[in-house]
Amino acid sequence: MSRPIHVVVLGAGSWGTTVASLAARNTPTLLWARDSDTVAEINQNRRNSRYLGDVELAPALRASNDIHEAAHSADVLVVGVPSVAVRETLATIAEDLRAWVPVVSLAKGLEPGTRMRPTQVVTDALPGHPVALLAGPNIAGEIARGYAAAAVVATEDENIATALHPLFASGVFRLYNNDDVLGCELGGILKNIIAIASGMADGLGVGDNTRAMVLTRGLAEITRLGVAMGADPRTFAGLTGVGDLMATCMSPRSRNRRAGELLASGKTPAQAAELLGQVAEGIKTAPIVMELAREFDVAMPICSEVDSVVAERSSATDAYRGLHRMLPDGGHEAH
Amino acid sequence: MSRPIHVVVLGAGSWGTTVASLAARNTPTLLWARDSDTVAEINQNRRNSRYLGDVELAPALRASNDIHEAAHSADVLVVGVPSVAVRETLATIAEDLRAWVPVVSLAKGLEPGTRMRPTQVVTDALPGHPVALLAGPNIAGEIARGYAAAAVVATEDENIATALHPLFASGVFRLYNNDDVLGCELGGILKNIIAIASGMADGLGVGDNTRAMVLTRGLAEITRLGVAMGADPRTFAGLTGVGDLMATCMSPRSRNRRAGELLASGKTPAQAAELLGQVAEGIKTAPIVMELAREFDVAMPICSEVDSVVAERSSATDAYRGLHRMLPDGGHEAH
Repeated sequence: MSRPIHVVVLGAGSWGTTVASLAARNTPTLLWARDSDTVAEINQNRRNSRYLGDVELAPALRASNDIHEAAHSADVLVVGVPSVAVRETLATIAEDLRAWVPVVSLAKGLEPGTRMRPTQVVTDALPGHPVALLAGPNIAGEIARGYAAAAVVATEDENIATALHPLFASGVFRLYNNDDVLGCELGGILKNIIAIASGMADGLGVGDNTRAMVLTRGLAEITRLGVAMGADPRTFAGLTGVGDLMATCMSPRSRNRRAGELLASGKTPAQAAELLGQVAEGIKTAPIVMELAREFDVAMPICSEVDSVVAERSSATDAYRGLHRMLPDGGHEAH
Repeated sequence: MSRPIHVVVLGAGSWGTTVASLAARNTPTLLWARDSDTVAEINQNRRNSRYLGDVELAPALRASNDIHEAAHSADVLVVGVPSVAVRETLATIAEDLRAWVPVVSLAKGLEPGTRMRPTQVVTDALPGHPVALLAGPNIAGEIARGYAAAAVVATEDENIATALHPLFASGVFRLYNNDDVLGCELGGILKNIIAIASGMADGLGVGDNTRAMVLTRGLAEITRLGVAMGADPRTFAGLTGVGDLMATCMSPRSRNRRAGELLASGKTPAQAAELLGQVAEGIKTAPIVMELAREFDVAMPICSEVDSVVAERSSATDAYRGLHRMLPDGGHEAH
């Protein structure tokens, strides 16, 4: 029997903890958390109550706050820190990691300044490592509680994808492959902005038709940007596109959807962030996506309205009054 | 000034009444209802309380139960009866209708036996008439209450589409064109079956991830069938595809979603139909779609599970246990 593969997950937020708990049922897994109380709670009580309430984590999961020791033991490294912290976190451990260790990104935001996707930041910070993405319609709290879900492992190297499956998959957590890393990663990033628009719709009580219209036209505009950047349009019709969009916009637990609701109730972005207690990636991503929209000359009216609200140039009510601008009347149904 | 265009809507269910009320704000509109109490209530109280509760209909809307007189006065005929009644209803008025009157179908079911789509039945029953389809994410009760929504006018003749827009559109009801009649019509028909699956998911409490997974894979399978039948795959990413699917699956008012919930709670299809009081088209359509799936050799695992439940060959719980069959593990994310 070969030596088991040691999975190390960096970042003990809700999704990082959930993925670590999934992996710990399949293989030895270590979760690095910055906060020593979180480490103690996981090791002693199998809980991460700050992020996952009373969910019981896998008995075999261990936690540590020594990031160097963690990285040193990794056969596979999973990056579950917020996207703004990916570069700095990986720089810390670049010397600790063996050169061939595959790195799996869970992050769903663009880096301010560079506008890089998380897998690009990984490649920049850890050159030469195989990089993959785990993405899909994954509300962490539900998966942690054992509800069925499906996700995509996106990587250009099919051998890596196939080797990663048994580390994370289970009877209720199904994994598919997709070699369109760009499309899969953009879907997860861009959908957060549409989820804010959907949350604003909920907060304003505009009804299910309007919400469906915003989601459909939102999907069309993120697909347009993705295709202009080189992604496969079919990816946006899959789990990491429309699937992630629907889960995020339907779930009462989604941070980005909740952020939209709070903005609709008149809270400022700063107040919304404080009330959520966690990062709503879409708030940080909206201005960067608008830079991409200009660079690639793609019309993104819904993202533009969300960007105006998160930049406090307009209110959620104004944004929905701007529906006329967002959704021009008549003409052929643009694809 | 030219003579105004007289719109006649056949069928005073929730959607027929809503479309008639939309048109009556733009142009003289007559709604044919079979039931004389409904006719009296609309003419005297501007209400159709059986289908739309206390919604106030357009003041100018008139109703009649003389179908011959109604058809005789039509410049545009809208067919809002349930899909199983389309052929018989149109046969009644074939002699009353001027030959060039365009016919707009609202129906969303396949004809048993012939497996024809409603626009095909229209062409069969009224040869030579221009035919169009009005479809999209349209929960009748919300539109009747004046909530914003968007829909598609699908017809191969762009002149007809452009002429129809001002009859139905308003500041809050936006219309787009699409010449892919087949794709637009199939989206509306097939999504009802996925909505039943989604309702079963809600009823069983399987969570938002699972529901998003079922919707995403459901969208993939209805797109596969549509493409095999000759539709444009992009249509299924639009308002009549994913848009209608999301509105139907998210809305507590959707009949098909409710039917799924009732089936999940152990009700038989007959009991569910009685409790709903209205047709859940997906229950009648599921076996016909499975015939098409076999004819065009397309795998439709989710529709197949729904078909088993509505045919009482299995329970909703069995169907979700069949998730393993529905959503095979691993491999490339099929498009």
